[in-house]
Amino acid sequence: MICEILCVGTELLLGDIINTDGAFIAREIAALGFGSYHQTVVGDNPVRLREAVSTALSRCDVLIMTGGLGPTCDDITKIAAAEAFGVGMHFDESIRDDLVEFFAKISRRMTDNNLSQAMVPDNGIVFRNKWGTAPGLALEGEIDGIMKRAILLPGPPSECEPMFMECVKPYLAALSDETIYSRNLHLYGIGESAAEDILRPLMEESVNPSVAPYACEHEVRIRVTARAKSLEEARTMTREMSDRIYKTDAGQYIFAETDNPFDAKNAVVTAMIAELRKHGMTFATAESCTAGMIGSTVGDIPGASDVFVGGIISYANEVKENVLGVPHETLERVGAVSEECAGYMAQGSRRTTGAGIAVSVTGIAGPGGGTPEKPVGTVCFGVADEKGVYTTTRHFNGRNDRAKIRRLTTAYAMMLVIRRLRGEI
Amino acid sequence: MICEILCVGTELLLGDIINTDGAFIAREIAALGFGSYHQTVVGDNPVRLREAVSTALSRCDVLIMTGGLGPTCDDITKIAAAEAFGVGMHFDESIRDDLVEFFAKISRRMTDNNLSQAMVPDNGIVFRNKWGTAPGLALEGEIDGIMKRAILLPGPPSECEPMFMECVKPYLAALSDETIYSRNLHLYGIGESAAEDILRPLMEESVNPSVAPYACEHEVRIRVTARAKSLEEARTMTREMSDRIYKTDAGQYIFAETDNPFDAKNAVVTAMIAELRKHGMTFATAESCTAGMIGSTVGDIPGASDVFVGGIISYANEVKENVLGVPHETLERVGAVSEECAGYMAQGSRRTTGAGIAVSVTGIAGPGGGTPEKPVGTVCFGVADEKGVYTTTRHFNGRNDRAKIRRLTTAYAMMLVIRRLRGEI
Repeated sequence: MICEILCVGTELLLGDIINTDGAFIAREIAALGFGSYHQTVVGDNPVRLREAVSTALSRCDVLIMTGGLGPTCDDITKIAAAEAFGVGMHFDESIRDDLVEFFAKISRRMTDNNLSQAMVPDNGIVFRNKWGTAPGLALEGEIDGIMKRAILLPGPPSECEPMFMECVKPYLAALSDETIYSRNLHLYGIGESAAEDILRPLMEESVNPSVAPYACEHEVRIRVTARAKSLEEARTMTREMSDRIYKTDAGQYIFAETDNPFDAKNAVVTAMIAELRKHGMTFATAESCTAGMIGSTVGDIPGASDVFVGGIISYANEVKENVLGVPHETLERVGAVSEECAGYMAQGSRRTTGAGIAVSVTGIAGPGGGTPEKPVGTVCFGVADEKGVYTTTRHFNGRNDRAKIRRLTTAYAMMLVIRRLRGEI
Repeated sequence: MICEILCVGTELLLGDIINTDGAFIAREIAALGFGSYHQTVVGDNPVRLREAVSTALSRCDVLIMTGGLGPTCDDITKIAAAEAFGVGMHFDESIRDDLVEFFAKISRRMTDNNLSQAMVPDNGIVFRNKWGTAPGLALEGEIDGIMKRAILLPGPPSECEPMFMECVKPYLAALSDETIYSRNLHLYGIGESAAEDILRPLMEESVNPSVAPYACEHEVRIRVTARAKSLEEARTMTREMSDRIYKTDAGQYIFAETDNPFDAKNAVVTAMIAELRKHGMTFATAESCTAGMIGSTVGDIPGASDVFVGGIISYANEVKENVLGVPHETLERVGAVSEECAGYMAQGSRRTTGAGIAVSVTGIAGPGGGTPEKPVGTVCFGVADEKGVYTTTRHFNGRNDRAKIRRLTTAYAMMLVIRRLRGEI
């Protein structure tokens, strides 16, 4: 079974929004075991949309479309899909009722253009939209003698994603008889080329499960993917391959394993929280250049409150002095971006919040503020716990912008906490 | 001149990474005045890639490709492009020298697979990669008697984006004779349908400049886009149309104007910083459920340190009590998620940090922790300044997940600061 994704929206062609729907659906259909060879974006243009629908349906079994369903979109996606399947459209009273109810609930007036959302292709399966106004749809039928399916979803990710999970995923799962399972091994302290060099024999030898390295911003990720009749079998195959990877020279760099995108994205913070729990340790921050990003990253994880107590954002030197207790003399003599200041900050955060371990960051995220001695990208770190305080300096300079320097700083700070708890520093 | 974007990478088809390159390039080519009607993603498969290159080149003047250039990608993008233009490949010594220098600089061993990056199509223009290893390329030539161009860029955004700006943008600008200029009007407190209802006459009447509404997460954005021979002329056209929009019933909801994606993404925080500067006021936070996201959002903006002093992340009640001075009795009687607590938090942050104005948030971001009285999505806010303290409660419940509730909370907190400074609350 081959799936294809077609996203409709001039705002995508103009780059006004990033196509997160495409990535979300791609990941989900891969997990269901569907093949996927093309993704396309077209604008709100009926002629090009019709062409794109026809091309996609000629090379896939299931076409998944997003966008072009809202009240301001002239329904071009529904019309194009109905045409491709040779069916007409009708007004659906129950969708109208849903719309009336939705607008009553959010206490907004329903404007007339919303009613167009109740027009649906004949014989379509309607996915009711509990997250917004435009309903989703599935169309099924033979085109040139071959069974084809099209699924239409609203464009806003806040509607597209839950509707996919709740309505489309069960619909697709019933069509597939194979499962793909992927496991990510997260490595820190080794580059992509070096990891690939070590793993090349495994990568070349093994087709199922496959082994592929990905360079991510602050880590290297090795993805092991198995295809099997059952999830259990696929899991066993990835487990066996992962065990072989642990035995290579790359194994020592693995700090976390994940098997879904949320965990993968949050591998460092999740590993840190797990390590804190393992040691029964509470955690606090003292952030200057990251200005709350470390705390916010921990706050992304539901239930982190058992280990995370909070922290101090000390953007101004006055806050470093008055709240964290950094000596004025330190700030005068070596400046805020110094290991001495970072050490005081971490100790101050630990003392102020009562946490078991505290991490601090103070650096120059740029684009301004750099000097020859402390160029943009210079960040000092401190980790304070009952054993004392550890400080270090990193240079994230050269090719990194402000946002990236702050993200790299956040990840590095959390890796320091992991390493401190593991007794490595 | 029609541009088309083709992104190469199995990791895109699998949804492992989000196609930010596509959005970035789309935005830049729109700004240069190029038309853009299709974006495509294909995997690392030579047959489908060759087909995709041929299809794209048949309908565009300039094909921009990303990905498939790195040391682990077997160079399929370069080979497919060279084939499409009917040229061979050769080894480029100067690229080899760049690679050797790059690896020496980052003190990593250059593995042999990196050398494939020095193979380039004959007659190609090489864009040296100062941000990574794989060079970019431009190919020019007639295909079926029509002049066509292909531009090849590395996939990692940290290389693709600067190489586009530094090498590709000047190359493309020399090909175009029209400019597009867009201005975003940011509205808060009105829905997309209602805004569209008000602006429909302008939207229908005006083709150049065009007027289009976009629903964003916490605001409605009206985009005014003009096409003209000069940037100055396009700017004047959008200014005149913007002035007309201000005079409609939608005008009262406009809180900011922006003209580039960075500012648009940061419209609320930028408007807040501008308002703080206007009032000569310093700012601090007290964050519970956002856990540093408000501070981090302010820290995204270079130079915010003239108004932003810092804040307290009070995830645990102990930090609310001991650092912010929330009375134990308050936490016992009405709980941490209460306007009373929010008020104490804001006052505590203002007192502790010495800021002129402080905002606080305390709420239930979910998925757990909700009760019938305080369901997930309930957030209490406080704003403290010399005039006293203002508190309010919002319910971001219903269709929002943890991440979205925290983002909406962050935006709402900053809107409260803006409104407080403007004397509206």
